[in-house]
Amino acid sequence: MRVRKAVITAGGARQRALPLQTLIDRDGEEKSVLQILIEEALRARIEEIGVVASPRDADAYAQAAGVHAGRVHFLPQPEPLGYGHALYCSRDFTGREPFLHLVGDHIYVSGVGKGCAEHLVEMAEAENCSVSGVQPTHESSLSRFGAVAGRPQGEHKDLYRIETVIEKPTPTEAEQRLIVAGLRSGYYLCFFGLHVFTPALVEILGELLEARGPGAALSEALGELAQREQYLAMKQAGRRYDLGVRYGLLVGQLALALSGADRQQVLAQLMRLLVAREMDRENG
Amino acid sequence: MRVRKAVITAGGARQRALPLQTLIDRDGEEKSVLQILIEEALRARIEEIGVVASPRDADAYAQAAGVHAGRVHFLPQPEPLGYGHALYCSRDFTGREPFLHLVGDHIYVSGVGKGCAEHLVEMAEAENCSVSGVQPTHESSLSRFGAVAGRPQGEHKDLYRIETVIEKPTPTEAEQRLIVAGLRSGYYLCFFGLHVFTPALVEILGELLEARGPGAALSEALGELAQREQYLAMKQAGRRYDLGVRYGLLVGQLALALSGADRQQVLAQLMRLLVAREMDRENG
Repeated sequence: MRVRKAVITAGGARQRALPLQTLIDRDGEEKSVLQILIEEALRARIEEIGVVASPRDADAYAQAAGVHAGRVHFLPQPEPLGYGHALYCSRDFTGREPFLHLVGDHIYVSGVGKGCAEHLVEMAEAENCSVSGVQPTHESSLSRFGAVAGRPQGEHKDLYRIETVIEKPTPTEAEQRLIVAGLRSGYYLCFFGLHVFTPALVEILGELLEARGPGAALSEALGELAQREQYLAMKQAGRRYDLGVRYGLLVGQLALALSGADRQQVLAQLMRLLVAREMDRENG
Repeated sequence: MRVRKAVITAGGARQRALPLQTLIDRDGEEKSVLQILIEEALRARIEEIGVVASPRDADAYAQAAGVHAGRVHFLPQPEPLGYGHALYCSRDFTGREPFLHLVGDHIYVSGVGKGCAEHLVEMAEAENCSVSGVQPTHESSLSRFGAVAGRPQGEHKDLYRIETVIEKPTPTEAEQRLIVAGLRSGYYLCFFGLHVFTPALVEILGELLEARGPGAALSEALGELAQREQYLAMKQAGRRYDLGVRYGLLVGQLALALSGADRQQVLAQLMRLLVAREMDRENG
């Protein structure tokens, strides 16, 4: 299979403004967060991008897409009813094709080599199925993520066949249902915020939304997807930064700067600032 | 004299969007830069605030003023014609009163004790004249600032009577005309971005703008002010952060965080991030 389309979901009530923020990317260029996400997708050979967001943000997002505006389809989500509903709003855009899903309030920083989305899309194309990026995450952070369990898939040491999906599990639930062989004790496979989904997911979402109303959760649909099809989890080598948490933009900007072209300059500024603040504290 | 009014100038072409950015202030609250500047002024017992900016930004600025919108007078500057012209645009608002001037693209972080603007306003009220905040600045940074020279004023070790004002001097000009007794070699008194001005400055600006057109510079008016009246420079104990330079928002946010309520938390995040990036570099 070939993944040509990507969906960026940005309709969440607290996330609406994040894709519009300006950061300096790893290449030293000033870009909106939306533009950084679009370029993450383009690096994975995506050709068309759908952005699911509040209709009120259509103009602002078109502007934030910058030079990429021509590739972007704006997909209105009238109300912030969760990721499941957001993805279902993209059904006419994705149609019968698999698609890459990026959340609009994260940025992804890979090590050297492939981009995070690029690596994931290549794996999905090679395995011909849905694949979610995951990262071993300490149980103290479980309340912020969806988590999966499954068994190792074939000879790939970073690939698992998903059997269970739980949204924001408690540590007890995790211990009972999400232990994965080979991970350090107290660590679980939590979603990284990047997925490749087959059209089966959108079908399942349609069924669930009809049965349950708009509150039906994406994690439930993912659990059902794992029953119907092969659905894999791939450990991502890079790091994700949630821009929506307190100081998220600060930490995300620092992560970009420290892994990019301006690393030396920013480290030097950081050190000057720390020294100056320490001197002020000693003198003050 | 009593300083009741403040003018924030934000009409510069490259500065327009900076007052609209969101930062987390020292008290841990999310605020626009405009709101942080307004609160800097309120802490100095300012009662009314005029914001000089492009008419296109009126709505955005009103929103960015947040809870303080009621104290803010929007003063349109139709074209970005420099600080001199911007201050002249505030003449109906300031009238016959002295006023505090803050530039809209800086934030000011004092040590413990008084706020930067608070300290300056108290000095201006005590000395009953115009006072500009200054900071000893190395000659390598002279190209970014206005600089002054003068002689020490009375018994205050941080106060100078200004005799010369030069905008962005060359190191040679500085060595010939801006040496100030008591500063380390290679250091000059550069503007901090905070001033208290008497109405005489606005009169002088009016004369200069009429004689020279809108290009007349604030520094020339300040030189004239020093001839007509007592005009002092006060060394500021805090630090200023120019948000308009590359990574300016990042450094400004860090400076706020490291001198505020969230210091420990942000330092810990910073260290985690640095360690993680170093590990990625070693492994990648």
